[in-house]
Amino acid sequence: MSEQVNSDLMSKVVALCKRRGIIFQSSEIYGGINGFWDYGPNGAPLRRNIEQLWWRHMVEMRDNVVGIESTIICHPRVWHASGHVEQFCDMMIDCMECKRRYRSDQLENPNQCPDCGSKKMTEPREFNLMMKTYVGPVFDEEHAAYLRAESCQPIFVNFNTVRNTSRQKIPFGIAQTGKAFRNEINPRFFTFRSREFTQMEMEFFCREEESMEWYEYWRGERWKFYTRELGIAEDKLRWKPHENLAHYAKAAVDIEYLFPFGWGEIEGIHHRGTYDMMRHAEYSGQEQDCKVFDQETRESYYPTVVETSCGLDRICLMMLCDAYHEDLAETRKEGMDEDERVVMRFPANVAPVQVAILPLSKKLSEPAGKLRELLSLCFRTDFDDAGSIGRRYRRQDEVGTPFCVTYDFDSQDDGCVTVRDRDSMEQERIAVNELTVWLLDKL
Amino acid sequence: MSEQVNSDLMSKVVALCKRRGIIFQSSEIYGGINGFWDYGPNGAPLRRNIEQLWWRHMVEMRDNVVGIESTIICHPRVWHASGHVEQFCDMMIDCMECKRRYRSDQLENPNQCPDCGSKKMTEPREFNLMMKTYVGPVFDEEHAAYLRAESCQPIFVNFNTVRNTSRQKIPFGIAQTGKAFRNEINPRFFTFRSREFTQMEMEFFCREEESMEWYEYWRGERWKFYTRELGIAEDKLRWKPHENLAHYAKAAVDIEYLFPFGWGEIEGIHHRGTYDMMRHAEYSGQEQDCKVFDQETRESYYPTVVETSCGLDRICLMMLCDAYHEDLAETRKEGMDEDERVVMRFPANVAPVQVAILPLSKKLSEPAGKLRELLSLCFRTDFDDAGSIGRRYRRQDEVGTPFCVTYDFDSQDDGCVTVRDRDSMEQERIAVNELTVWLLDKL
Repeated sequence: MSEQVNSDLMSKVVALCKRRGIIFQSSEIYGGINGFWDYGPNGAPLRRNIEQLWWRHMVEMRDNVVGIESTIICHPRVWHASGHVEQFCDMMIDCMECKRRYRSDQLENPNQCPDCGSKKMTEPREFNLMMKTYVGPVFDEEHAAYLRAESCQPIFVNFNTVRNTSRQKIPFGIAQTGKAFRNEINPRFFTFRSREFTQMEMEFFCREEESMEWYEYWRGERWKFYTRELGIAEDKLRWKPHENLAHYAKAAVDIEYLFPFGWGEIEGIHHRGTYDMMRHAEYSGQEQDCKVFDQETRESYYPTVVETSCGLDRICLMMLCDAYHEDLAETRKEGMDEDERVVMRFPANVAPVQVAILPLSKKLSEPAGKLRELLSLCFRTDFDDAGSIGRRYRRQDEVGTPFCVTYDFDSQDDGCVTVRDRDSMEQERIAVNELTVWLLDKL
Repeated sequence: MSEQVNSDLMSKVVALCKRRGIIFQSSEIYGGINGFWDYGPNGAPLRRNIEQLWWRHMVEMRDNVVGIESTIICHPRVWHASGHVEQFCDMMIDCMECKRRYRSDQLENPNQCPDCGSKKMTEPREFNLMMKTYVGPVFDEEHAAYLRAESCQPIFVNFNTVRNTSRQKIPFGIAQTGKAFRNEINPRFFTFRSREFTQMEMEFFCREEESMEWYEYWRGERWKFYTRELGIAEDKLRWKPHENLAHYAKAAVDIEYLFPFGWGEIEGIHHRGTYDMMRHAEYSGQEQDCKVFDQETRESYYPTVVETSCGLDRICLMMLCDAYHEDLAETRKEGMDEDERVVMRFPANVAPVQVAILPLSKKLSEPAGKLRELLSLCFRTDFDDAGSIGRRYRRQDEVGTPFCVTYDFDSQDDGCVTVRDRDSMEQERIAVNELTVWLLDKL
């Protein structure tokens, strides 16, 4: 694929997301707010389905991983211990005349303001990316708190409580999904780099001696999640080892997807050593809560952590880019105005709508509505009785609905409906009373 | 129930939540942070199940409600339009000597500091409950933003985009679940009044003439949610009409639950008139995005809004208080140390664990583990092979697991397991190959 095609694809995905209510800018009627994106009626289900799939795959199907849900705001010392208060920074330069602020790596000449021309510029200094707020009645440093910059830190902090109450023994994992915030200076690539996003993280606590085995295990599991559960082709994914390892880490690798704008990280699998647990022991003074007791050696030790960390919004974006297809054929015979259709080939397990019910005429809306009610018990459904059947197929194709069920004038007599397959566009006549089983089998 | 019993019950629920990893203070090893609570391995599933039940009941099962997911931080003008920046306040008084701050309604003598005794006190002034942060590189008023104080405002702001992309026509609703933040001066009653909490809100847009009908309809639907879906007894719930209606509202009522600390609001059903849509039209200047066009009269009008708004954390707390029971009998024969057991009688649809698999001996852990793997495909499961069977029953009772499956030494020969019912404590021998169907029928 050429660069041209890729940048076309990105614009097309963004336009489709807006047109079909999948993702659009937050607060649009107020002109939007840079780096914040809302999920609409077709985006929220996609997002929920992927999150639920991750939760099922990482927590519910495993006996050695448990799930938690911690608050976005936690004790500010957590972010001192994690190093975020001191080190989670970009370098900035201020103009002392016009007070404008710049990222130093984006200034061509750090000694002159590109805006007012003044040469009174500060030295580069650190700008912290954490979002700060105040908790309690006084707005001073004592009451400062941070919106979490990553969802893993509360997992470390809760380690001992979770271990005790879940009766888990090393090795085991703690997982959670939830919002994180970063005051990115330069949000970009649609939802790829935004200021408010959802992380899905799992921290696996094990013995140092076994940690590289677990690291390899989780690499394999996470690769399978993308290729098997989400159906991404292997040649659209790659491993990207970190070039610079943190001093405490034995290994770290990203999984990247080939986005229209190039390879981009969707997940990191990180060997974090005992660093986090040691830091929280030091900063909290609660060493015993950060260690585990070894019955054999009668000694306490810091568990080693292997982390799997991915961004839900990035996975959604990957699924959108991956699903986007344009067909050039076979649609005319269905009565559409054009030969070209856009079709989102989502896997059925994450598609926002699984089955759309389309009465051929508005006169059939009542019995078709009853069928929809029935199908709603088992599937995510939509109902559309407006416009030609060809137009309605096209709308469903654009949100990736695997099956459209057409209720026609014969349906009431023969008890059958026409089911149309999104990808093959083939149609099959199915008895209504066999439809649920037929669909359950396919979906 | 006497006051004494009630306050006992609250302490017992709080202690159980801590003991079984359901809910505990955020950042405990750092001494906690007032008004913030984390959900542990048994709390996170309870929370997810209730949220999912609401989403299914309010969105997926209806053809006239669609779901969205908007950001926590949105354009700050949204909160000017909503009135929160100007009016979402408590009255505060400062001591000018020791700088301490008080809620004026909690000071006995507003002219003297209860702490340092100084009589240099400020006049009462407004303290805004919204949490403020800054987005972008400069921390000034131009870059101030707020953590949303309620999740409904982004729904109003997105009204037209959602309506267009979902092809819904008036009357229809938009729903979402998500975090909201309020800098409460006095968080209390465990998770009842906290500073970070999850709302589940649905805004129903209709014609003024039909709005009271819809108001009554949603009152009925929401009552059914608590009594039928969550199984709360009618005498533990009551309607509480608002004493003072906002000038624009035709009606407003709360649903209250009888908590151990008294009647407390779990949901509000509010007729909001056209107020919100008119305010956003005024503040955004995008009148056409806040109105709908009437094909018959060829005129645009502001839709009237009926809202259903509940707090997920409060519903969780209600379910915990409601489920808590102590039995005094029949446990001895199961080999427990004491006659008394605590049992959480959660409905099976929200119970954190649906089926626990308990091998009678650690020697049976392998085949029992395989059984657990199988059951995990259909149910939320737990596995416990530590301690006497009586102790393990007690642990499962305390997290409200409806069924415990005991795998014993006969199981491998006769292909049967013993299933124990949480509430009746009766035991039944069931063939393993019929177990899934048997459980599906009960759960």
